[in-house]
Amino acid sequence: MAPNPNFAFTVTATDRATLARLGRIETPHGAVETPAFLFCATKAAVKAATPAQAEAAGTQAILANTYHLMLQPGAETVARLGGLHRFMGWDRPLMTDSGGFQIFSLGEAADEDENGRAALVRVTEEGARFRSHLDGSAHLLTPERSIEIQRLLGADLVVALDECPPSRLSREDTARSLALTHRWAKRSLEAFASGDDGRQALYGVTQGGVYPELRRDSAETISGLPFFGHAIGGCLPAQAEDVALYEVFAMAVEGLDRARPVHLLGIGGVRDIWEGVAVGADTFDCVHPTRIARHGGALTRAAKGFRINLRNARFREDAAPIEEGCDCEACRRFSRGYLHHLVKAGEITGLTLLALHNIRFMNRLMATVRASIAAGRFAAEMRAWCG
Amino acid sequence: MAPNPNFAFTVTATDRATLARLGRIETPHGAVETPAFLFCATKAAVKAATPAQAEAAGTQAILANTYHLMLQPGAETVARLGGLHRFMGWDRPLMTDSGGFQIFSLGEAADEDENGRAALVRVTEEGARFRSHLDGSAHLLTPERSIEIQRLLGADLVVALDECPPSRLSREDTARSLALTHRWAKRSLEAFASGDDGRQALYGVTQGGVYPELRRDSAETISGLPFFGHAIGGCLPAQAEDVALYEVFAMAVEGLDRARPVHLLGIGGVRDIWEGVAVGADTFDCVHPTRIARHGGALTRAAKGFRINLRNARFREDAAPIEEGCDCEACRRFSRGYLHHLVKAGEITGLTLLALHNIRFMNRLMATVRASIAAGRFAAEMRAWCG
Repeated sequence: MAPNPNFAFTVTATDRATLARLGRIETPHGAVETPAFLFCATKAAVKAATPAQAEAAGTQAILANTYHLMLQPGAETVARLGGLHRFMGWDRPLMTDSGGFQIFSLGEAADEDENGRAALVRVTEEGARFRSHLDGSAHLLTPERSIEIQRLLGADLVVALDECPPSRLSREDTARSLALTHRWAKRSLEAFASGDDGRQALYGVTQGGVYPELRRDSAETISGLPFFGHAIGGCLPAQAEDVALYEVFAMAVEGLDRARPVHLLGIGGVRDIWEGVAVGADTFDCVHPTRIARHGGALTRAAKGFRINLRNARFREDAAPIEEGCDCEACRRFSRGYLHHLVKAGEITGLTLLALHNIRFMNRLMATVRASIAAGRFAAEMRAWCG
Repeated sequence: MAPNPNFAFTVTATDRATLARLGRIETPHGAVETPAFLFCATKAAVKAATPAQAEAAGTQAILANTYHLMLQPGAETVARLGGLHRFMGWDRPLMTDSGGFQIFSLGEAADEDENGRAALVRVTEEGARFRSHLDGSAHLLTPERSIEIQRLLGADLVVALDECPPSRLSREDTARSLALTHRWAKRSLEAFASGDDGRQALYGVTQGGVYPELRRDSAETISGLPFFGHAIGGCLPAQAEDVALYEVFAMAVEGLDRARPVHLLGIGGVRDIWEGVAVGADTFDCVHPTRIARHGGALTRAAKGFRINLRNARFREDAAPIEEGCDCEACRRFSRGYLHHLVKAGEITGLTLLALHNIRFMNRLMATVRASIAAGRFAAEMRAWCG
């Protein structure tokens, strides 16, 4: 595959003590300064924020979900309405995932269902057969169909279909799953190349569960294929509190081609981002910042776990903003007491304001990460944040 | 009561064929060009829009509800957090109602409850005793307490407590209710004057149901009292489709002091606004524009009833904006097809975008009304809109 002149990844600075690096991903819809956080627009909308609000909060790029959009409204409908950028009013860099993670996480949930409900997903060499969580309709997602759907959606950065192995799978089964992911990676590349019009760049996913040698094997295999970038899969949000996660990050990145951008799929905790950057990740995505907003959660540097819950009665007459010094719309204009009231009263505006704060917090966090790398003091800044 | 130099109402132009007029209400938080629509911020937030978004959509003034805020978070809490303007981040003109309408509409609903539940409201000379719809706690709202609460909230324009008689009450009972409203009006004025600090101006409410002579009597009585403005009460939203409503408007305004601003409480249909302006109303408020947004409704001039419902499957692949030529954030950036998708998918962002459109629609409508009066062709423009 010839290099695509519409896309480039440039490393502009590297940290001496860690694998952290400063970079820039160029796309037909502009550049992303890395390390960067991509906000999830699961169903083609960042939850509770308009594109104008997401932009005003400093958002560089967002990620939409192939699984959700293929089911509703359907990739062909999005294509007929001008593609995902136009559909969702987002004119900046945009990524879609492969659809795999959602299929397999829903499938795993179904396996755990003790009410005799049939599993929602079945994997064959061909692809993954699954039933829609919306209406039970049957679907087959193959590596080729995932590429086709993502082409119809038209995001700048697209991802090859992988199998996300259930957590705590045996080494043998994880190796079998990984081999399938690698065969799917090659099929994805072929499907991508056959219809490549220069408007998209493809990321290959490495897997391997918690097994160091499988992670290393996967990094080498995927690095040996002409992907534009690499994505690290299988880091389930449920594991995010587990310190071993950071070792998995390190194993997963080790052996990857360092000339390509590395995306850590589904990672969005504050500490996880520092750890991910430290082992060489360039971009991240996660529903966390907007999801916790819908439950009254606001990100702050000072709080334990980097969050407070505005539902808490202690904020009832608190005249301070969520976070002193934050320049988001919520902090510039409103007290914790007001936000407490909105959350308690079930006001949509409350969810929006918390989402805007959390988006701005993440964008400021990533700016801090980048500035610390540029200033040659990433490790010190990481210690100051994470202890 | 001496005139308050912080407030003024000036009529700058009058229509020849109708009672429509162009004016300006000046308050300590800026001026309102009339005729104007005040958006409801029931619980101190315009539903699904931030203050910045409401401002960007051209909103001049909003109205918050005393009933809701006295129960949650409580007027004293709002006062301790700096008053309503600061609490809700709104630095422009702000009105609160008296709390009466909500008490009586909830009371009427309880009367219709056939499950043996006790009525939620009981009216005496002293005031209205009612139970909170949130937790059943007992409250007494008197004319004096309504003024006290509204002083704690600190809106620019405040309203005297009235009794909203149940619709279709007999003439005799309506007359009895009206006499109570008039006694409450005098008590409200006394309570207001005793603590007047120049930061607020008081509206007196006229009632009288559907009885012309009672409406006229009320207009004269209320006009004889030194209120800054007049509000027309008892126009329940349920009657809005009823053409007789416009006759009630006319009766209610007839006999009022024309040097004072007239507010039509709870009126917000497109046709109702044209009719209201035609009989001399200056300001309006209603939950309609933001409420229908939460059910997929978008206001458009072209549609029957001035609205379309984006839930409708016919919009699935409609690439047009809600309304051609509209400069709102939703119409500038998104197709009906996208909004249909968001509404179907239950995305909060969809509710926000429809609310922003409807807010902008109403503000553009009021600008059209004002321009037509200024140009001396109000009646022609009203015919063009309402047929």
